[in-house]
Amino acid sequence: MQLTGNLLIGQQSVYGANGSIKAVNASTGAAIEPAFGGATLDDLDRACALAWSAFDVYRETAPEARAKFLEAIAQNILDIGDDLIERCMIESGLPRPRLEGERGRTVGQLRMFAEVVRNGDYLGVRIDPPQPERKPLPRVDLRLRYIGLGPVAVFGASNFPLAFSVAGGDTASALAAGCPVIVKAHSAHPGTAELVGRAVQKAVKDCGLPEGTFSLLFDSGRDIGQGLVKDNRIKAAGFTGSRGGGTALMKLAAARTEPIPVYAEMSSINPVVLFPNALKNRGEAIGKAFVQSLVLGAGQFCTNPGLVLAVDGPDLDAFIAAASAALKETSAQTMLTPGIHKTYESSIDKAASHADVTIAARGLEAKSGHQGQSALFVTTADAFRKNHELQEEIFGASSLVVRCPDLASMRELIESLEGQLTSALHIDEADYADARSFLPALERRTGRILVNGFGTGVEVGHAMVHGGPYPSTADGRSTSVGSLAIDRFLRPVSYQDLPEALLPDALKIDNPLGLNRRIDGKLQLAN
Amino acid sequence: MQLTGNLLIGQQSVYGANGSIKAVNASTGAAIEPAFGGATLDDLDRACALAWSAFDVYRETAPEARAKFLEAIAQNILDIGDDLIERCMIESGLPRPRLEGERGRTVGQLRMFAEVVRNGDYLGVRIDPPQPERKPLPRVDLRLRYIGLGPVAVFGASNFPLAFSVAGGDTASALAAGCPVIVKAHSAHPGTAELVGRAVQKAVKDCGLPEGTFSLLFDSGRDIGQGLVKDNRIKAAGFTGSRGGGTALMKLAAARTEPIPVYAEMSSINPVVLFPNALKNRGEAIGKAFVQSLVLGAGQFCTNPGLVLAVDGPDLDAFIAAASAALKETSAQTMLTPGIHKTYESSIDKAASHADVTIAARGLEAKSGHQGQSALFVTTADAFRKNHELQEEIFGASSLVVRCPDLASMRELIESLEGQLTSALHIDEADYADARSFLPALERRTGRILVNGFGTGVEVGHAMVHGGPYPSTADGRSTSVGSLAIDRFLRPVSYQDLPEALLPDALKIDNPLGLNRRIDGKLQLAN
Repeated sequence: MQLTGNLLIGQQSVYGANGSIKAVNASTGAAIEPAFGGATLDDLDRACALAWSAFDVYRETAPEARAKFLEAIAQNILDIGDDLIERCMIESGLPRPRLEGERGRTVGQLRMFAEVVRNGDYLGVRIDPPQPERKPLPRVDLRLRYIGLGPVAVFGASNFPLAFSVAGGDTASALAAGCPVIVKAHSAHPGTAELVGRAVQKAVKDCGLPEGTFSLLFDSGRDIGQGLVKDNRIKAAGFTGSRGGGTALMKLAAARTEPIPVYAEMSSINPVVLFPNALKNRGEAIGKAFVQSLVLGAGQFCTNPGLVLAVDGPDLDAFIAAASAALKETSAQTMLTPGIHKTYESSIDKAASHADVTIAARGLEAKSGHQGQSALFVTTADAFRKNHELQEEIFGASSLVVRCPDLASMRELIESLEGQLTSALHIDEADYADARSFLPALERRTGRILVNGFGTGVEVGHAMVHGGPYPSTADGRSTSVGSLAIDRFLRPVSYQDLPEALLPDALKIDNPLGLNRRIDGKLQLAN
Repeated sequence: MQLTGNLLIGQQSVYGANGSIKAVNASTGAAIEPAFGGATLDDLDRACALAWSAFDVYRETAPEARAKFLEAIAQNILDIGDDLIERCMIESGLPRPRLEGERGRTVGQLRMFAEVVRNGDYLGVRIDPPQPERKPLPRVDLRLRYIGLGPVAVFGASNFPLAFSVAGGDTASALAAGCPVIVKAHSAHPGTAELVGRAVQKAVKDCGLPEGTFSLLFDSGRDIGQGLVKDNRIKAAGFTGSRGGGTALMKLAAARTEPIPVYAEMSSINPVVLFPNALKNRGEAIGKAFVQSLVLGAGQFCTNPGLVLAVDGPDLDAFIAAASAALKETSAQTMLTPGIHKTYESSIDKAASHADVTIAARGLEAKSGHQGQSALFVTTADAFRKNHELQEEIFGASSLVVRCPDLASMRELIESLEGQLTSALHIDEADYADARSFLPALERRTGRILVNGFGTGVEVGHAMVHGGPYPSTADGRSTSVGSLAIDRFLRPVSYQDLPEALLPDALKIDNPLGLNRRIDGKLQLAN
């Protein structure tokens, strides 16, 4: 499939006149064709105008129509075939099996949201029937449903060029919620973005939806991304990336005449907490599994295990030895972009030269210029507490083991951590009582707590929380993975005493959509 | 019941050393005893420390225990008896029947949240059972529940000294969510605040809860209110008041190291849209009912009908004539505070002297210094569009009728309105088609849409939304009235592969709490 380098503004495909960007071969650093034209502020304005005018129509699409649209996007992505995988491999440096898996995940997410739309529980229908005879005042007829917030700006992530990008989780959940989407393509994978963007654009057309339901913009600088968040027709933003990028968007959004929610997933070091019995009985095995998780995708996961906490002693020595032995055998892997690789290298140098940090092991050396060499560092609880910079995420296959004097200081140390996406506990049955005493501190600062595993597998399901207190995300009241992600783009509206003829189908008393509803506060299933 | 003027910090009752405030008799403007000691920053710190240390215990209270606590608060408020009503009448200038009704509402809210806690749906339990045989990777065991955000700062409102104050909707919903509460008392009704605060304090003790579950602080300036929102142990704030006050808190919250949600309910002019047939057939009756709603509680409702839109012509003339005749007979009423009265008077003067605004009618003149005299103004659509200040809320019994040339311009004018708490449509059956075409614009900017009524009655139920897009509230994704208000103070946490022994009761597979749950995406009722 031929790449055009064009912006997709509604059903138009036009070459942007505001500078251009080229993708870079992640392995070689060489620029690759074609050049993608950067959007002008006029292009941005047109995309926003189209999205705004699409909103009222798109948000009232029937459930089946909206579900079919999401499924059509999924099918169109599959129909691109191997061209998508190949272009994405070059742009991201990620290997084929990973990207084939990620495509499956992306398609799966879209299909899951189709089912969420058909199911309709996200509408949160509540009906308080009238009580005309109530004294001293009759009770009115009240009905509530959730509607979409409005057009949503989505910023694709570099580390999931499919699953968290143009048609990734943010886009899928916003579209499911009834919100048009404008994507600011990540400059690290513009070709992948165009291919997927055209898949969405085609689905919009084939499903007969308003063209403004979807647009894709390339940005040769920062004006378009910032302009999107500032535009008063945009009512929410989804972002996955660095803390700097995320907090910049948060500030722009808060400074608007009408502030809007920003769902930025930013940074997390995902503490792994090793408890004494597990450490003693399975330290070696945990060490090996830990390294497997650490180096997955060159460590470029938001849920990468960047911090290990355990009580100091021979059992921890054995864990470190096993992890170090495993890590030494790990190959250096091509990182997503030369820039990410450079930042990784300098972060590693900084950690390695830290007075209170020692190097336990490094992985195999890089064979080319943009491969990240994995690293394992060790420090003490005291040093960790005193040096806040040791809490900073190193994006890549690097982790820091903290030797704690005892369990009490380990728990204290957890209380000093910032908000996290995940926390992992490694426990045997004899550790349960200790682990229980850690749970409150972990719950207060973590979106997902897991036992005897690592956070790097993020299941796309209904009970997943991929989110967490600030600064792991901008808004800890939400998740960006799983069916609950749709809630981010909804708000409740209440209808009082509306005649049936004027009520939306979701709220009609005879329940034409077959929805589960809360009647007078009690959940009632449709069947 | 003797007032002490004391701060309530956990179970302590201490006189604040940071200046003092006195209540003012709303009718006479005279200061009344006793003086309430202002909290110092040390007092604030102590209250926050207690709230923080209470959080882990309080949030894990069993449903029945938490429900009984809410009911105990309700009963303790009733047990204060007439002392509460009498003090509140003096402080607020509101008449006895209104305050007795408001007490009933306050008690009713607490009892409703007790039922919400017993019901447990707010926990949002989701379980995705494991699939150990799944290929290529086994599926983990994932369970999700919502937990409280953490200690919540509540800022009482002047206009509902009971239902939106110390034990009002924000406090009741935050406590129901498992969040300790620190109330910054409104300086307009410190005596009422102390009485209700002691009722809550006693319930905390009688129920054996951690003392930090509740504190009440008086603020002789602004340091305590601001300090509360800035304290890193406070994880959310609830506020009802002016736009200036609300946006100031939003800024403080956004500037924190860890930004927190602020649920500020601020200002709204609550458009009333009169459609041609209703206007023609029932213009007089609507005019009379409109004035009844307008002058309720001296017009000091967030949902007060401050704007009327209709197509110009003899039918609108008849409506204005009927409303004017009714309004001329309305008595001036004591306003909540001399400050509110002063602001009302100057806003009325400003409107009256506006070149494009004419006075249709004034109510009866004030008999004392702090009574608000009701007012009805008229302008044109053109003038309304050109003068943004005509959209500003006048807090009190004042409204503005806008003569629109036709329905199309009326709908356009709605598109120029800011976010609103309510919109009211007056329609006959022949108006349905026109009304339908207005709904999208209204839904986009309104929390509650009502037909053939006025927004001033806010039913405390399950399907109520008392909220709306900015600037009617800080966060249009929520409601501050009704059972859904609990959602504001919750965040989801996911538990992966935890042994049953470590899971909270809400997530145990045998469902000891008898909760409705979402299993693999499908809602299942407990019975």
